Amino acid sequence: MPPRSPLAPDSFPALPVIGGVRFAAAQAGVRYKGRVDVMLALLDPGSVVTGVFTRSATRSANVLDCQAKIGHDSKAGAAIIVNSGNSNAFTGKAGDGSVRAICEAASGITGLPAERIFTSSTGVIGEPLPHDRIIAKLEELNEGLTEDAIEMAAKAIMTTDTFPKGATATIEVEGKPVKIAGIAKGSGMIAPDMATMLVYIFTDAQISRGALQEIVSTVNARTFNNITVDSDTSTSDTLLMAATGASGVDVTGNAAFAEAVETVFLDLAHQVVRDGEGATKFVTVTVTGAASDADARTHALAIANSPLVKTAIAGEDPNWGRIVMAVGKSGAAADRDTLSIRFGDVLVADKGWRAPDYREEQGAALMKEPEIDITVDIGLGQGSATVWTCDLTHGYIQINADYRS
Amino acid sequence: MPPRSPLAPDSFPALPVIGGVRFAAAQAGVRYKGRVDVMLALLDPGSVVTGVFTRSATRSANVLDCQAKIGHDSKAGAAIIVNSGNSNAFTGKAGDGSVRAICEAASGITGLPAERIFTSSTGVIGEPLPHDRIIAKLEELNEGLTEDAIEMAAKAIMTTDTFPKGATATIEVEGKPVKIAGIAKGSGMIAPDMATMLVYIFTDAQISRGALQEIVSTVNARTFNNITVDSDTSTSDTLLMAATGASGVDVTGNAAFAEAVETVFLDLAHQVVRDGEGATKFVTVTVTGAASDADARTHALAIANSPLVKTAIAGEDPNWGRIVMAVGKSGAAADRDTLSIRFGDVLVADKGWRAPDYREEQGAALMKEPEIDITVDIGLGQGSATVWTCDLTHGYIQINADYRS
Repeated sequence: MPPRSPLAPDSFPALPVIGGVRFAAAQAGVRYKGRVDVMLALLDPGSVVTGVFTRSATRSANVLDCQAKIGHDSKAGAAIIVNSGNSNAFTGKAGDGSVRAICEAASGITGLPAERIFTSSTGVIGEPLPHDRIIAKLEELNEGLTEDAIEMAAKAIMTTDTFPKGATATIEVEGKPVKIAGIAKGSGMIAPDMATMLVYIFTDAQISRGALQEIVSTVNARTFNNITVDSDTSTSDTLLMAATGASGVDVTGNAAFAEAVETVFLDLAHQVVRDGEGATKFVTVTVTGAASDADARTHALAIANSPLVKTAIAGEDPNWGRIVMAVGKSGAAADRDTLSIRFGDVLVADKGWRAPDYREEQGAALMKEPEIDITVDIGLGQGSATVWTCDLTHGYIQINADYRS
Repeated sequence: MPPRSPLAPDSFPALPVIGGVRFAAAQAGVRYKGRVDVMLALLDPGSVVTGVFTRSATRSANVLDCQAKIGHDSKAGAAIIVNSGNSNAFTGKAGDGSVRAICEAASGITGLPAERIFTSSTGVIGEPLPHDRIIAKLEELNEGLTEDAIEMAAKAIMTTDTFPKGATATIEVEGKPVKIAGIAKGSGMIAPDMATMLVYIFTDAQISRGALQEIVSTVNARTFNNITVDSDTSTSDTLLMAATGASGVDVTGNAAFAEAVETVFLDLAHQVVRDGEGATKFVTVTVTGAASDADARTHALAIANSPLVKTAIAGEDPNWGRIVMAVGKSGAAADRDTLSIRFGDVLVADKGWRAPDYREEQGAALMKEPEIDITVDIGLGQGSATVWTCDLTHGYIQINADYRS
């Protein structure tokens, strides 16, 4: 196993209990031995479930099944079952059968209708999922459910992750607390533009499915969809958010709730980047002055996905010429003579040319920091976007020349 | 300097003299010491010059100047001047001035009009080009011109290249030979979809500028535009092809000539991939059965540019699941249940599922070879494309965390 990322937070955060949802994890031995690799989250009746998913054309059987189920209202509760070690992607009709078998078995044990069982699988692509091993643990999982096992659930969904990822936010509405807690996994095969990695977020807010889905889709576009580790998009990306209503507080139309959701999404998204395979630098790329927000995002992603930019950052080389290259190749509008680049607060390039006062030592000093801010102003309009990424190091090569994902 | 690529040809090929063009190289000390870093090619009156260029929005002053000059007919000869060590890209108005100064000085020395002087620069982006060092060598270059110095010219244009690149073809038309000889440089910041790297190709054929340009554009789309080392596109990509007419053979409408041009382009394009930074594997990705040729190319490039596919190949891991992932993320049409994948002749995945007879040892054995063929059939239509790439290794990280390009 690779060592814990140098960009990891000190510890897993203290996540509050969310009324109406309980968790359990177990060792099913899908692929990994001696660690938890399957989790169950059980949601009480009255909960709503929303989600966003990968747009990959080769998405997994689980994603297809979730997408078929997610748009319906139900008075029943719901369950989320996730395994690591095998993604059940590109496993043909047998993969569809694995999902069906798990959902039917879980339905029998929990008493929920099969349409309310949502599953995800993450790990190697193209190997048959040994779903019997998961089904054999469902009884144990159901009996072991507790309100405070979310950290164990976060551990069960890890693959090449070097730390479990959690985040939380609480708001007060008329004196009553509304809580949000979420977990995520992901460290390679991470690219935006489609959906995200595996993320499960829970709140005790009261809100309709439609209203929550709208918040989730909007906030996802600004958070998970704007991170990239390696420009490769998983076949299994899934984000599910459930609201149990246990707080008794209706948050419909409450801007503070949407902001709190964004806080949690962004925290988890940043943790995914901080655990990017081989990452030693956390990089924020902000593009302003583009012809449109879409153009700004195109430029920002071109910079964040450029192997030459990412290796320069790994080498602590303030090689701003590669940022010029990435802007130039992105396909979005740019003009040499209006372009400027900053590292942190330092103006590096200005109006098509190296900034007159810039000294290489300034850039070199900033590159030694673990967190690096790159700001590019295109100078053509009002469009802006921010994207987060990490560097490309020997660690990434090591992990991916060996690990079968 | 990194060692010579393990995928390099044994030696520089014997290139024939092309009547009507002479070469010289010199040590101008633009950036590198103790090696040739500037070349001059001088074309006799009556030669036509054609070209294709990067579509980068931040292309270099030289590229902009060449583009302004390339579409015109002229009875005069022409000159091509190329330096390595500095790309003169993102050097603002000063960069335009550098090109003008070189062209005016060369005009004075060669007697050619400045509109017939084509220049390229390759190397670090964003540093002022010390054009005086190049101008100081023009007299020496002009006096040293010889018909057989093309290999020295190939050496003068190298940056992180580990070997000089040359290719040739000869056809007979009514008993008379028509010769083609070309040189290229490039090993990082190599991606298709725009134009190419630095390539200079010469022929003694007689052909109009318009007819030659059409051949160049068509053949370029099938050769240089279908290679990728790292998905990053240079600000300086330039291909110039000149026909001197010295053979006295008119090749207008001659299919064998166009085929010979393609042979030379493809040979040089493959050499660029074989010298991809850190490359240890030469990979041919062929996609068939796509909804269109454009879709096939999109899938092939998604596979060839995927860091996870490239690192798996570096690790000699027959990880075909990552190929499924890349097809899925590409954005072009695909269907899990009609997709098949071959390594060499071995059917690995078929119709949405691991092929029943495939054994991991078969894939593992093929991955140990230095040349790897990946064929993906999408199963939806008649579209096809072939793309060439290399693996992503520790060598790439080493070169690019250090080298300032």
